[in-house]
Amino acid sequence: MNEWHRLTAVEAARRLARRELSAEALLRSCLERIAAREPEVRAFAHLDADAALAQARALDAGPLRGLLHGLPLGVKDILDTADQPTACGTPIYAGHRPPADAAPVALARGAGAVIAGKTVTTELANMTAGVTRHPLNPAHSPGGSSSGSAAAVADFMLPLALGTQTAGSIVRPAAYCGVVGFKPSFGRAPRAGVKPNAESMDVVGGFGRTVEDAALLAAVLLGDRRALDEPVPETFRLGLAPGPDRDHAADDVIACWQQAVRVLAPRLARCEDAALPADVADIAALQGALQAHETALSLAHEHRVHRERLSPALLELLDRGAALDAVQVEALRARAARWRSDVDTLFERFDVLLAPSTRDTAPAGLAFTGDPLYCRPWSLLGLPCVHLPFARGANGLPVGLQLVGRKGEDHRVLAAAKRAMAWLG
Amino acid sequence: MNEWHRLTAVEAARRLARRELSAEALLRSCLERIAAREPEVRAFAHLDADAALAQARALDAGPLRGLLHGLPLGVKDILDTADQPTACGTPIYAGHRPPADAAPVALARGAGAVIAGKTVTTELANMTAGVTRHPLNPAHSPGGSSSGSAAAVADFMLPLALGTQTAGSIVRPAAYCGVVGFKPSFGRAPRAGVKPNAESMDVVGGFGRTVEDAALLAAVLLGDRRALDEPVPETFRLGLAPGPDRDHAADDVIACWQQAVRVLAPRLARCEDAALPADVADIAALQGALQAHETALSLAHEHRVHRERLSPALLELLDRGAALDAVQVEALRARAARWRSDVDTLFERFDVLLAPSTRDTAPAGLAFTGDPLYCRPWSLLGLPCVHLPFARGANGLPVGLQLVGRKGEDHRVLAAAKRAMAWLG
Repeated sequence: MNEWHRLTAVEAARRLARRELSAEALLRSCLERIAAREPEVRAFAHLDADAALAQARALDAGPLRGLLHGLPLGVKDILDTADQPTACGTPIYAGHRPPADAAPVALARGAGAVIAGKTVTTELANMTAGVTRHPLNPAHSPGGSSSGSAAAVADFMLPLALGTQTAGSIVRPAAYCGVVGFKPSFGRAPRAGVKPNAESMDVVGGFGRTVEDAALLAAVLLGDRRALDEPVPETFRLGLAPGPDRDHAADDVIACWQQAVRVLAPRLARCEDAALPADVADIAALQGALQAHETALSLAHEHRVHRERLSPALLELLDRGAALDAVQVEALRARAARWRSDVDTLFERFDVLLAPSTRDTAPAGLAFTGDPLYCRPWSLLGLPCVHLPFARGANGLPVGLQLVGRKGEDHRVLAAAKRAMAWLG
Repeated sequence: MNEWHRLTAVEAARRLARRELSAEALLRSCLERIAAREPEVRAFAHLDADAALAQARALDAGPLRGLLHGLPLGVKDILDTADQPTACGTPIYAGHRPPADAAPVALARGAGAVIAGKTVTTELANMTAGVTRHPLNPAHSPGGSSSGSAAAVADFMLPLALGTQTAGSIVRPAAYCGVVGFKPSFGRAPRAGVKPNAESMDVVGGFGRTVEDAALLAAVLLGDRRALDEPVPETFRLGLAPGPDRDHAADDVIACWQQAVRVLAPRLARCEDAALPADVADIAALQGALQAHETALSLAHEHRVHRERLSPALLELLDRGAALDAVQVEALRARAARWRSDVDTLFERFDVLLAPSTRDTAPAGLAFTGDPLYCRPWSLLGLPCVHLPFARGANGLPVGLQLVGRKGEDHRVLAAAKRAMAWLG
């Protein structure tokens, strides 16, 4: 029995491009893995093996399409797909058939990806969990909101998957599941056809099992070959940025931080504390308030018409967000704008920052997808992040940290992440 | 025969709130006007009188909903409506039924608006004209891309309508049709459920026959009572900003500019040339390039799957936009960011800027919706704009100018526009 589903995306892409491996064979291997594991993991909101195989055969019969030729891709179920339902994790949209692919899906398809299935999201990509379970321990949450995408990639069901992040919805599940999560700079990957939450923070990104795999997907999402081709630096300047909530980290995360600094510091051109602006103590709360406000606007229809079909937690968030007035929101935006400018200057001293990804390993139970606390600052600031999965907690579940780059320098944070993982791995 | 359809939105809202006028009576008056005029003007992509009347009767039977209670509203056909088809001006989406209202539609409905019908847009809100004709001369274009919304309001079919702008799609048709067009600051009105073109510039705004009417709609769209309540200033500081393309204005626009300066200057606290950054000569071209690039991303699905159903002009734009690489785009964005910062400082000396809205009056013929040249800078910069319809060209068609405000000070540019129209009107 083959193990094609265990290939990295980069290795599979190489063989596919040489026609040494067919898209159909790779997909069949993934489908077998899915058949074996899906009853336990529940990563998929929609999966039609025959339709996916038809896509794969069409690719095998035609010319090479692009960087993702023949690679099976999972798509978070808040991204529209023209050939598959898109339910956004809510009964409100059960069975909904969009008339078009979301732009990131269209870009991936144009680059040759097989849209293998739709992955489970939390309710409208907010905090109420979907059905997905952690691949390494089904009694634990995989994190959210990109739950199914992170779990499917971690569990070797698929080499790559798309996710989205508003607070911590890519980096958090990547951390819990032990895969690489890439959140681009704000405004770099298109969002047409993606269900919005907070327009000033929502981004589309992805998951892979290696930084190189995530970079391959990033090159397509961002339309930027540098994500793939940027030379891996021999060393780099690292700013330590545990942030104002550093004391909320569990022992596993502290141990992981200490391990990273011990391994990295001797190899780095610089490794020093990065001083965030003096008044960031409430940055996570401010991000949360702005997210609630903008989400209440984006979901104005659901909030008005479908109150009884929303979870109590989401309804509370929408009520809270809608209660903020324009003057209050303006004050939040003004602080965020100043922080963006202040933090940008940090990148004159540092190539990338190191920050925690999560407070702990994946939480026990399926109802709570975990706290996005450590992701909120970088989502508010719009900076590119790469989660590095290099450690295990005391319970055996994955843990890691994120590298944060300068806005627009997605290719540089990916390159630094490749180097860091080579040292840490 | 009543003439309720000729009431301003503000006056109609007052009578509706006192229950002196019913939503049904107002809507019936509008529907009669539409029945008389629509064969010539062709403002509507979809109109179901019975369904609209049912909305009106439900409002009459219930409590007062909000600022727009009982007001018939036109909705540009790139905004999703849960109860009406949304075809985006292209056969690709003919008859498409979205599962939800776009967020601005939901906000308007929540404030009591009757969603009276969907108004004609150009193809996917780009440059290929729809069927709408100018209300004052059917041999002329009403402008675009919010063609039907501007024409319906100008022709007294509806008191208010929603539009969107990426380059000049609100201000241009407002200018041609002789109504007030309001384009908000970038990022202030939600866009969920609105078909995207260029994500860094698309905004949702609206049309009314007076600034007060446009401000009423703005208060709902922005969730900001200040749009309505900001005191009208006794005077203000005006910066004259004809921009680097000033020499492209036709005689009618030059005459209109001279008239405005003659009337306003003696009444203003300041009226001086506003110095735009030295290197803005190509700002319109840069905006156009960035728009093409981002539109190619947003319409990646249509570009990939429906090439043969796109107009040659749109296909050319998408091909051109897709050909830009990430490094080129980064350079465009960097210049735009610097301009945003530089122009922001102008507002320390000036409350608002005065700029041309169009090169001329509405063009003859229906194929060309006019040049957005004079709107491109402010769309790129994300500044709030109000078109002031106060003059006529030699051919009797409307002409006017726009006031441009500081980002986020939508309420202040609306208040200044009220004062300016009182002086100019």
